[in-house]
Amino acid sequence: MNVSNKHPSLIVHQARPFIAETPLELITKSYITPEEIFFVRNHGSIPEINVDQYRLRVTGMVRSTLSLSLDEIHKFSSKTISATLQCAGNRRSDFSRIAPIEGEINWNAGAIGNAQWTGVPLDAILDAAGIDPEITHVAFSGLDVVEHPGPNSRFGASIPISKAMSGETLLAYRMNGKPLTAIHGFPLRVLVPGYIGARSVKWLGEISVRDRPSENYFQARAYKIFPPHVRAETADWATGLSLGNMPVNAVITRPLHGAILKSGRFLVQGYAIAGGRPIERVDLSFDEGRTWMTAELRGAPDPWSWRFWEREVNLDPGLVRISVRAWDDAAQTQPEDPGKIWNFKGYANNAWHRISFSVRS
Amino acid sequence: MNVSNKHPSLIVHQARPFIAETPLELITKSYITPEEIFFVRNHGSIPEINVDQYRLRVTGMVRSTLSLSLDEIHKFSSKTISATLQCAGNRRSDFSRIAPIEGEINWNAGAIGNAQWTGVPLDAILDAAGIDPEITHVAFSGLDVVEHPGPNSRFGASIPISKAMSGETLLAYRMNGKPLTAIHGFPLRVLVPGYIGARSVKWLGEISVRDRPSENYFQARAYKIFPPHVRAETADWATGLSLGNMPVNAVITRPLHGAILKSGRFLVQGYAIAGGRPIERVDLSFDEGRTWMTAELRGAPDPWSWRFWEREVNLDPGLVRISVRAWDDAAQTQPEDPGKIWNFKGYANNAWHRISFSVRS
Repeated sequence: MNVSNKHPSLIVHQARPFIAETPLELITKSYITPEEIFFVRNHGSIPEINVDQYRLRVTGMVRSTLSLSLDEIHKFSSKTISATLQCAGNRRSDFSRIAPIEGEINWNAGAIGNAQWTGVPLDAILDAAGIDPEITHVAFSGLDVVEHPGPNSRFGASIPISKAMSGETLLAYRMNGKPLTAIHGFPLRVLVPGYIGARSVKWLGEISVRDRPSENYFQARAYKIFPPHVRAETADWATGLSLGNMPVNAVITRPLHGAILKSGRFLVQGYAIAGGRPIERVDLSFDEGRTWMTAELRGAPDPWSWRFWEREVNLDPGLVRISVRAWDDAAQTQPEDPGKIWNFKGYANNAWHRISFSVRS
Repeated sequence: MNVSNKHPSLIVHQARPFIAETPLELITKSYITPEEIFFVRNHGSIPEINVDQYRLRVTGMVRSTLSLSLDEIHKFSSKTISATLQCAGNRRSDFSRIAPIEGEINWNAGAIGNAQWTGVPLDAILDAAGIDPEITHVAFSGLDVVEHPGPNSRFGASIPISKAMSGETLLAYRMNGKPLTAIHGFPLRVLVPGYIGARSVKWLGEISVRDRPSENYFQARAYKIFPPHVRAETADWATGLSLGNMPVNAVITRPLHGAILKSGRFLVQGYAIAGGRPIERVDLSFDEGRTWMTAELRGAPDPWSWRFWEREVNLDPGLVRISVRAWDDAAQTQPEDPGKIWNFKGYANNAWHRISFSVRS
């Protein structure tokens, strides 16, 4: 496993397949997350790919099946977008404090990063293949062999045709201006802005144009939200909310939970994100949501990228507890209580983020 | 004021301008709301329009200014879509029980309706005028003279260019298969699916293509959400979250709050809506959100139209309290406590809808 480009400060949850998140104290240092500290959630080993023999196959409900070499892919007009990727299980640790979540990574709030992605818009590839009017979904299959209980041995996902043809879904071959590294999907990966990271399939081998979602384990069974009373043993896997866009969320990255600070002025900082919608406001509360103050937003509203926020506050000695919530441009804000959105797979926790810390005089 | 086509069961909040909502017991009787019981929120008197002299003007950052007669508009290819309109203040009454909201209509949860709208996609009109690459917004101006504190005497709004060119924004001249009635905007109105009703300007007189949002009172000042600590006297009107898409919401329409029911099996019913995103799940709780049961969803998921839901429950004698919450396809659900999203204009209340009723043996 080649993880040599990864920074030692990453919090490694698992060595094989490699799974690691960015420490909160590094997240808001840079709007564009350096590749070295970008989180990784792999489901299998990194495939060894011979770039000369590599072909992207485009199959299914198309007029012409395609088999494209990397040179041919690079000849399409490219596009660069800034987009935030996050794992569907980001902030799961706040759920697992309420009730155990079995067999899943216990992410803190660092399974997220923002990068500049360069590649071919997926609609250009689909136009080149010619798509059938009956098409409703586009499925992706990776070249990695993954570990899971189902019969399918490759990682896969699918997205609705509207998202595939929107011009914003890329087949990316560059990240932050440099060629993709092996761990992030070299030589080609999907980038579905706003969606859970699992739909942005790495080491892309095949695009299949279809009239239904993918039957791959990771689309048909994993990455679904079930009601709070459902458990793995009782789940009807044909049902459940199949995750696409992520909900509005906000996280405090400074100070850290459990910090010991000096009294006086202090700059509270963090990130906010709403998959597919821009962040319009971030509120902070020092009294469990009874009253709120508004944070300063940095940068411009963007539907695909996080927004950093900050607020200078005056800290008096004692134990301080802060809650944060964000609002998107549809006046959508976050639920208060993680216990009331808990789900047994531990996905999409967007309850108010809360931290406590001590202030000394 | 011609309101003769309106059904006497409507709850009239104001006679002039006419403002009325649909009683909750009628809302979920029909997926397509009959025009006779469709809510009305007018800001001024209905303009008298001579259809022979009527012209729609298309001005601003266009290659050719247009002045289109109704015959010319009707010659464009038409499109019919089902879309739910709701007032930004729907469910304000749950806010005003927490703290008074001055000068606004005290809507219950019936300022909403779903109709089939037929008209010309706005992008076809803009393509005919030829739009400048600098364009960012499209503004609408009605022919009605409105009452408000500002200098502009006509109702107006604007939407981002992406929404204007999406193919889903219509200039509608038919509602539920019949010509628009005077009270709903005859001869031509805008229909912006997913957005607050106020952007769907009635009696459309002018479309102005621009590089910034409209300065009209109803875009620049009204229909904004301010943080909870802000009041009218302290508001900086240049700030605030300008409403577009509405957040995910759900309402119980059966039984009614305060009902007296017999014990036994009972079908609880209601609607759910998320402006611009399909509804994926609706949960009911009989214990203030400690445990939830899942409702049955009717129809297919649709980003622009509400979804009806129902759940047969067993009612035991006593006082019963039900809460409901919906989830959209981005795993976004509703906040629990209306007090924590209260805003002094009373917009976009999407806290859990709660009702109480008595059950007798």
